[in-house]
Amino acid sequence: MQFSSDNAESWAPEVLEALAKAAEGPLPSYGDDPLTEEVGQRFNHIFEKDVTVFLVATGTAANSLAFASLCPPYGAIFAHEAAHVMVDECGAPEFFTGGAKMVALPGDAGKIAPDTLTHALSHFFEGFVHHSQPHVLSLTQATESGTVYSPEEVAVLAKIAHGRGMAVHMDGARFANALVHLGCSPAEATWKAGVDVMSFGATKNGCLAAEAVVFFNPDGAASFPYLRKRAGHLFSKHRVLAAQMLAYLEEDRWLKLAAHANAMAARLGGELAGIEGVRLWYPVQANEVFPSFPGEVAAQLMGEGAAFHPWIVPGDPAQGQMCRLVTSFKTKDEDVDAFLTATRRLCGA
Amino acid sequence: MQFSSDNAESWAPEVLEALAKAAEGPLPSYGDDPLTEEVGQRFNHIFEKDVTVFLVATGTAANSLAFASLCPPYGAIFAHEAAHVMVDECGAPEFFTGGAKMVALPGDAGKIAPDTLTHALSHFFEGFVHHSQPHVLSLTQATESGTVYSPEEVAVLAKIAHGRGMAVHMDGARFANALVHLGCSPAEATWKAGVDVMSFGATKNGCLAAEAVVFFNPDGAASFPYLRKRAGHLFSKHRVLAAQMLAYLEEDRWLKLAAHANAMAARLGGELAGIEGVRLWYPVQANEVFPSFPGEVAAQLMGEGAAFHPWIVPGDPAQGQMCRLVTSFKTKDEDVDAFLTATRRLCGA
Amino acid sequence: MQFSSDNAESWAPEVLEALAKAAEGPLPSYGDDPLTEEVGQRFNHIFEKDVTVFLVATGTAANSLAFASLCPPYGAIFAHEAAHVMVDECGAPEFFTGGAKMVALPGDAGKIAPDTLTHALSHFFEGFVHHSQPHVLSLTQATESGTVYSPEEVAVLAKIAHGRGMAVHMDGARFANALVHLGCSPAEATWKAGVDVMSFGATKNGCLAAEAVVFFNPDGAASFPYLRKRAGHLFSKHRVLAAQMLAYLEEDRWLKLAAHANAMAARLGGELAGIEGVRLWYPVQANEVFPSFPGEVAAQLMGEGAAFHPWIVPGDPAQGQMCRLVTSFKTKDEDVDAFLTATRRLCGA
Amino acid sequence: MQFSSDNAESWAPEVLEALAKAAEGPLPSYGDDPLTEEVGQRFNHIFEKDVTVFLVATGTAANSLAFASLCPPYGAIFAHEAAHVMVDECGAPEFFTGGAKMVALPGDAGKIAPDTLTHALSHFFEGFVHHSQPHVLSLTQATESGTVYSPEEVAVLAKIAHGRGMAVHMDGARFANALVHLGCSPAEATWKAGVDVMSFGATKNGCLAAEAVVFFNPDGAASFPYLRKRAGHLFSKHRVLAAQMLAYLEEDRWLKLAAHANAMAARLGGELAGIEGVRLWYPVQANEVFPSFPGEVAAQLMGEGAAFHPWIVPGDPAQGQMCRLVTSFKTKDEDVDAFLTATRRLCGA
Repeated sequence: MQFSSDNAESWAPEVLEALAKAAEGPLPSYGDDPLTEEVGQRFNHIFEKDVTVFLVATGTAANSLAFASLCPPYGAIFAHEAAHVMVDECGAPEFFTGGAKMVALPGDAGKIAPDTLTHALSHFFEGFVHHSQPHVLSLTQATESGTVYSPEEVAVLAKIAHGRGMAVHMDGARFANALVHLGCSPAEATWKAGVDVMSFGATKNGCLAAEAVVFFNPDGAASFPYLRKRAGHLFSKHRVLAAQMLAYLEEDRWLKLAAHANAMAARLGGELAGIEGVRLWYPVQANEVFPSFPGEVAAQLMGEGAAFHPWIVPGDPAQGQMCRLVTSFKTKDEDVDAFLTATRRLCGA
Repeated sequence: MQFSSDNAESWAPEVLEALAKAAEGPLPSYGDDPLTEEVGQRFNHIFEKDVTVFLVATGTAANSLAFASLCPPYGAIFAHEAAHVMVDECGAPEFFTGGAKMVALPGDAGKIAPDTLTHALSHFFEGFVHHSQPHVLSLTQATESGTVYSPEEVAVLAKIAHGRGMAVHMDGARFANALVHLGCSPAEATWKAGVDVMSFGATKNGCLAAEAVVFFNPDGAASFPYLRKRAGHLFSKHRVLAAQMLAYLEEDRWLKLAAHANAMAARLGGELAGIEGVRLWYPVQANEVFPSFPGEVAAQLMGEGAAFHPWIVPGDPAQGQMCRLVTSFKTKDEDVDAFLTATRRLCGA
Repeated sequence: MQFSSDNAESWAPEVLEALAKAAEGPLPSYGDDPLTEEVGQRFNHIFEKDVTVFLVATGTAANSLAFASLCPPYGAIFAHEAAHVMVDECGAPEFFTGGAKMVALPGDAGKIAPDTLTHALSHFFEGFVHHSQPHVLSLTQATESGTVYSPEEVAVLAKIAHGRGMAVHMDGARFANALVHLGCSPAEATWKAGVDVMSFGATKNGCLAAEAVVFFNPDGAASFPYLRKRAGHLFSKHRVLAAQMLAYLEEDRWLKLAAHANAMAARLGGELAGIEGVRLWYPVQANEVFPSFPGEVAAQLMGEGAAFHPWIVPGDPAQGQMCRLVTSFKTKDEDVDAFLTATRRLCGA
Repeated sequence: MQFSSDNAESWAPEVLEALAKAAEGPLPSYGDDPLTEEVGQRFNHIFEKDVTVFLVATGTAANSLAFASLCPPYGAIFAHEAAHVMVDECGAPEFFTGGAKMVALPGDAGKIAPDTLTHALSHFFEGFVHHSQPHVLSLTQATESGTVYSPEEVAVLAKIAHGRGMAVHMDGARFANALVHLGCSPAEATWKAGVDVMSFGATKNGCLAAEAVVFFNPDGAASFPYLRKRAGHLFSKHRVLAAQMLAYLEEDRWLKLAAHANAMAARLGGELAGIEGVRLWYPVQANEVFPSFPGEVAAQLMGEGAAFHPWIVPGDPAQGQMCRLVTSFKTKDEDVDAFLTATRRLCGA
């Protein structure tokens, strides 16, 4: 009953096989290899647009390097108060940007509402040297509450941001899960809705350690190669990242893996919601479920071997009662069954 | 009718006279001069304790250098959402600390409530590498709303902070005004209540450009001299700062100047509160008054030559109707009279 | 004839096999897994001492995070003018440390001479706020010139550094190659000679992407976990790094792989030195050979498919004629033979 | 016999008088005042060009903020190895730029030779992500050795720098002294020779604490206001800086003050050079003299009350025997006489 995190699982076998295949022969280092070249073409195809792509090994690196490319030290970056970039990266955005200001926005179910953004921006006067200047809006897709912005919702927020001259970043650590939920094209979910750059996650959904930073507007990418190198995020054996990403993307593997995780979460959430005493705090739209359990049930479930976390975040509506269950590309049907059975029993249902 | 800012006035004549006197003869540069030595002794006397003092020219430098001394790059600094360090220094704290996280706390009338601090801290897990680690609590005294923390209020907050191993910083840009209101000793208002380091403002209250950073615990001060130098804040002709500060402190000048400013604000606020249609949003405890005026009265007052600002801050209860009037050591009785007369007339009172 | 870099080769098959084995089952993320635990024990054993170990994916990250742990922003780091940390990391040390000063020292054959260090330190006055304060000496082992410091040489330099209160860092990107040359124990080559922290390279010598930072004195390591996280270098699926490192270390694999590389370099260098017109600029002690070739021979060799680089570094004694050939754990005997045959032919020998 | 530093003296009486005059009436803060406006016009006139000017209080701030405006974190700044920005600012350039690389160039008498710059640049490959990218050349005028670049020398260096896309910065902490020596126009000494931005010093030559950063090309100045504010270098009572600078510039005061200092140095150096056993290490072109004295004479002079410093810098040709004597706008004829008389006596001349 493993629902602690999508990071607790390992990786898809095809990804490791791709590394085995990539081991043959010497190749130019630092990204001047044909595998990396192919990654670029694959992303062009997926996004129906010539994009500029960089690979790194972690999501924190992807997000922070994107910010550093887009935001001067005197800039401000706006994100949801529960966003990973806000609370779970030990100040990485501040570090990479040379001290940009992170502005935390409240919002139901992990999402930023347009009025909230507009109101927050009104406190940052344009050209007023005393105020950090708004440069980036970062949207998490899927959100930290397991919800998903529609392309229309993204477009409204992006329009506000662009109206202030800000770039729009999407933290897509769980982008595949969001996309499966949306059922639209990658282009529709991103640049067609106004996203300028995204962190395209792969680690959580089947890779060992691989993320892409995708610039839909190449102008913003000029400094990225230097920033990546000086942050220690340029792999010498760059094929290690490229081979993973290619295997992740080929034959729609990324979407199939995410579809499985989402299906598991949907079933888990759907059935939990029907159990007396259990409450779901957010709609289940990706691969995360946020229930609260009556009495001692959460502790009892853990005692029976269920792995998941009590969850507390800024803006938490559940005041410390909420738990987080994450499904993954590897989640087994029988684990979901076992968890539901145990919950029903413990809840006296 | 000058109420735009205490920065809009110049300086006390005695301060300039001290600079004239300090011009005689060569002196060692960079602070190895007898005037600077005397500043240290003066502060020891004022605070009834051996303190470590550094002089700089601006409040932003004082605050940020204090933070950089106390907080590692992976640390978090907690302050009121409307605090100068949070919204009016263009990200200086993030810059000086190498990217520490600024955590904005809401709170009525510019003050942080103990529960708010406790709750915010509960989201930052101790030793959890994903979270910036709480290192500093910064309290503004007097607050940005012109209110004043009592020593008891400071002590409660300091106890919470110390309980988490945090240092307590006081941004005393208007400390003299606060102290006059409190009527207690400087020691009672600071280190006896748990303050570890303070920015002791002098510029707003009669100097040209001089602030002191006072460490009540010398341990935290070890890196300050280097940080100040590399930030360009060590004056070569250091007597320029020292002479100002000596003149500011001698014969209780700092308190007398602040007492005048406070008295002007008290009269202004007291009478405004009695005018039909005018509302004061915060109690007047230092040298700032935050009224709202009915209809077009604010604009009409400006049209008649009154200098003050419409005021909007995070957590603003007045939703954009509020104005800020600041009195200073130079505010004239007749300006207060004129303003009150005009307001009464325009309000039809 | 692949001699361009040890980064151009892939990895040892046993390392990939270890990743395949590590894929089984969920494991705690972020390093709380048994494989990571085992890495720590393995390093304790190798170094005959309880050490504190952190894993990252790149050498630049290892070096820079070590520096950031040891050196405040107002510190100075001394290294050879041709050191990787000085010239090949796009300013990573300056970035990670928040702007420490990198002081470049000249020195024959990639090594720093004791007098050079002493002389350089004499320009940095202790406690003088105008000078960045010496905090770290970084030694590259093997050096960028393919030479190796003896433990005695390290000890002399370390004594000077410790005498100024500095920590000694060893950039061991090619530590295995150095150790094979020295024939002493890992402990003798490092902490017994005065090294306080090292970057223990594995990527160049058989891993996909894995480096260890080893603190011989745990005091210096306290901030490392936070610095690593906020730099985006903490892997969520941390077993990816741990499994590689375990496979690299087990059965002395790291030393065997390096021994092969060194043997190839020794043969290559030894025979090149005997060819009329070829000159070796540095003794061949690890896995790098720095020859110059007469006339057009270097270009002709490249034309015949030999992969290597013309080499220019600060302090280059060869004024632009020098080439760098690197052997690796994968270098084939027949490549060495082919290169030597071609060189002899082209040199008319 | 005060020759320790031009920082040891106070300020010109006219500068303080200007502050007294500037005290009248309230003025807009943060630089929106008429005095600051007038400073801009004055600089336009002096440089025969529309320039963009910012005022700060210290030379370190001026230099570092200029660098931060011109150089990204992955950039490199080239300066003489003895330059103030290189060795006397405790790493301020690295701090303000977010970790740019400072590249130290050797050179006789404090000057960089064109070949030295060209050679150093050849080690930084354009577009090569492993190398910090050259962005700024900083020239000190007058140099740290008291020598002065001719406009022709500046032009040759600037052409090399511009050829690599670098900006040219001039550290003019002693620009007035240099200009008096050159006898050319301010424009000829700066932008007509290729200087893009300069630190225009005033503190050492008669102000209390005032420096200007002058952008000859306004493009580079866009981020300066934000960088200055977040570094704590924007004065609230900005007239404090503006009034000083106006008094400094009016009636050619800056040039008259420097002419006096230079004349004193010329006489001091000229006569010292004629004393048996005394050696001057650099030509005396501004207000500094670098003699060495035979035997115990230096110590004896200090014993008799002469204030000056033994001097050691990187590239010091005198190996620790050199002394530095600085004259200023306040140096008295009788002090020069007394020093010369004592030296002659002690040297047995």
